[in-house]
Amino acid sequence: MTTAVQVIERKKRGEELTAEELRYLLGGFVGKQIPDYQMAAWLMAVCWRGMTDAETLALTGAMVESGATLDWPGLDRPTVDKHSTGGVGDKTSIVLVPLMAAAGAAFVKMSGRGLGHTGGTLDKLESIPGFVCELPLDEMRAQVRRIGCALVGQSPELVPADKLTYALRDVTGTVDSIPLIAASIMSKKLAGGARSMVLDVKWGSGAFMQTQEEARELAATLVRIGTGAGRGTRAVLSGMRQPLGRAVGNALEVREAIDTLAGGGPDDLWALTLELGAHLLEMSGLARDADEGRATLTRLRDSGAGADMLETLVQAQHGDPRVVRQPELLPAAPVVRAFTVDEDGPRWVEAADARGIGDAALALGAGRKTKADQVDPAVGIVLRARIGDRVHPGQPLADVHARSDEAAEAAFAALRAAFRLSTEPVPAADEPYETVG
Amino acid sequence: MTTAVQVIERKKRGEELTAEELRYLLGGFVGKQIPDYQMAAWLMAVCWRGMTDAETLALTGAMVESGATLDWPGLDRPTVDKHSTGGVGDKTSIVLVPLMAAAGAAFVKMSGRGLGHTGGTLDKLESIPGFVCELPLDEMRAQVRRIGCALVGQSPELVPADKLTYALRDVTGTVDSIPLIAASIMSKKLAGGARSMVLDVKWGSGAFMQTQEEARELAATLVRIGTGAGRGTRAVLSGMRQPLGRAVGNALEVREAIDTLAGGGPDDLWALTLELGAHLLEMSGLARDADEGRATLTRLRDSGAGADMLETLVQAQHGDPRVVRQPELLPAAPVVRAFTVDEDGPRWVEAADARGIGDAALALGAGRKTKADQVDPAVGIVLRARIGDRVHPGQPLADVHARSDEAAEAAFAALRAAFRLSTEPVPAADEPYETVG
Repeated sequence: MTTAVQVIERKKRGEELTAEELRYLLGGFVGKQIPDYQMAAWLMAVCWRGMTDAETLALTGAMVESGATLDWPGLDRPTVDKHSTGGVGDKTSIVLVPLMAAAGAAFVKMSGRGLGHTGGTLDKLESIPGFVCELPLDEMRAQVRRIGCALVGQSPELVPADKLTYALRDVTGTVDSIPLIAASIMSKKLAGGARSMVLDVKWGSGAFMQTQEEARELAATLVRIGTGAGRGTRAVLSGMRQPLGRAVGNALEVREAIDTLAGGGPDDLWALTLELGAHLLEMSGLARDADEGRATLTRLRDSGAGADMLETLVQAQHGDPRVVRQPELLPAAPVVRAFTVDEDGPRWVEAADARGIGDAALALGAGRKTKADQVDPAVGIVLRARIGDRVHPGQPLADVHARSDEAAEAAFAALRAAFRLSTEPVPAADEPYETVG
Repeated sequence: MTTAVQVIERKKRGEELTAEELRYLLGGFVGKQIPDYQMAAWLMAVCWRGMTDAETLALTGAMVESGATLDWPGLDRPTVDKHSTGGVGDKTSIVLVPLMAAAGAAFVKMSGRGLGHTGGTLDKLESIPGFVCELPLDEMRAQVRRIGCALVGQSPELVPADKLTYALRDVTGTVDSIPLIAASIMSKKLAGGARSMVLDVKWGSGAFMQTQEEARELAATLVRIGTGAGRGTRAVLSGMRQPLGRAVGNALEVREAIDTLAGGGPDDLWALTLELGAHLLEMSGLARDADEGRATLTRLRDSGAGADMLETLVQAQHGDPRVVRQPELLPAAPVVRAFTVDEDGPRWVEAADARGIGDAALALGAGRKTKADQVDPAVGIVLRARIGDRVHPGQPLADVHARSDEAAEAAFAALRAAFRLSTEPVPAADEPYETVG
């Protein structure tokens, strides 16, 4: 008979565990027969020794089995899903989900809340007055059948093992293991039931993966799990040295997403939306290839179908749908102050560090230092210069939206550390996307 | 402010922890502010990354601080102590402690119980009718002042951190880490208060350390901790490919110890007793050098002073002192059967595997498979051939002392696996001792 200690010791020696052993361990942990401390020791042994693809796939499968899964019998739309490993200023889902639904896909996007320097899609959406993220599974299903999309919180009925495991990893220093990260991400995607999925894997100071190499490794692992489980899966690597788009902060980001659906908004946000959406349209058969997918998405944006769908979605989830046409209805901060260049001659922006800018927004109250913190929907930062831009003395680098002058001053200090100016020209941070899968 | 997660993560990255961090972690664990699962993750990270000498010494110190320590104000004898990493047939303490007390040292030997294939000194002593190992600290102190020695269980007042930590290591696959093993051993030795200590580090199939290299590493770590804490400390490496002496089993081993004090007994047991005792006498100033130490111990054996002291000790601890002159008063097994050579021609004993013979004794009931098992004091094995001996068809290799014929047959099967005979001559297993420190 297998014991937990044997499984721990086998992993500690670097041996490959069987699917049965992984199911025994994870099932026992979820069922409370295997105590936290044994799971903690095993998690650290996994950080040490890693996991093979077969192990990672088996662990992911065991996590999926811990709860309910979604399926969509009789649905006449192809199901798609997307995951981002998280970054600063990432409001892509708010743009992509309505466009994909307008294109004929069924898209249930389950998202998280922000913690630390990274924001969470749920916090952003909740800056829309009345918007409800926590829908009962039945209501969410009915909404998807009716309008083709939902932007909701992670259902607690899906993959309860992930929440338990993540909570333990968080307090035992065992978060940064690629197979554990991959199993956590993919178990939720697999349980969500979509047949095609795209994974936005970010790297750089504002991302969970600091280097492109780590991001590549994670992306490859994610794709192997997805395809190993029979789902269409691709990953897109994108840089997160500076924030995505210009807005960082909840209502500010919703507004930028609305602007983007209206044909405005920052180029990098639209480019990423097109990239991720084109893969989904191609994989789900709604476009012949990625180019047709890009054309479809651009047409749906230009026709206003994307914005219409966001309006429909906001209304379905009890939010004030007028925000889509009148973004000034979103909460606004009482103090807006420009953070300016105080150096002498012309300069080029060498760094607009995503992590530092995320921390500045956090200091303003846009995020949570601890899980119990309340988020201020109105505050945040809007960048007015990005890496490679030429800037002059007195020119604003960013607008700070704050509760008070004191808060703005504190954010200035953080921004001063985040921006680095060069006396020489600097190339823009437009690393090309890399596709895996 | 330091958090447990930070300490775990630093160790996980292979960084050196400060004494303060180690004190925080261990103190928090003992005080229940730091939960089992964080300690478990940290323990696995230590198995992964190891610990520097400074860390190991600091951890040992923090463990000592978790409980009471012994000191001996006004005692007119030098204090000595000894630890063995454990093996099969190791009854050295029962010979050495009375001899050292007779030589003028104060020797409180705190021992453990057996688990698995290794026996425990307490189980052996308790085969003496009436013998009490669990003495209150006060009574034990008074006894040492009166007669110079005590053979007792580990006091729960000393190093409570060790018991807690060991219990967690046992169920999290984190036992086999040299710094953790060293801190566990040395914290108890340091808390015991002796100024001079000798560490008997065994290697081979019957020992905790399988190879001489591992044993050397552990010995060096132990000595560095002891000398780092200002105690005279030496380690002696000894092989444990075959059992020490000939008797394996509780009353059988007490009898062999008594025989050895009476000038009989197996050569290897007496040699190890001399080796360990000579170091203690030299370090504590009771002998000018090891040779004088050996002469002193031999003289005390030959004069009967050692046996007299054992008698005094047994009486002080409520046991029947007559066993020292009449060992037939010890419990005896109803069935004694010879395990014989069943091969054709002359053979040489190539292996008398300590682990396998320990397992055979365990199967007879001499040890514990789980902590809750009762030990049978009478049963066990007495070897009649050792590695290198020439044996003939029909010659007994061992006597099996059993509760029943069936039990003896089961032990035969285990012995068949433990003994390996060669058609060629084999050298005796008399690897020289190696001294560290």
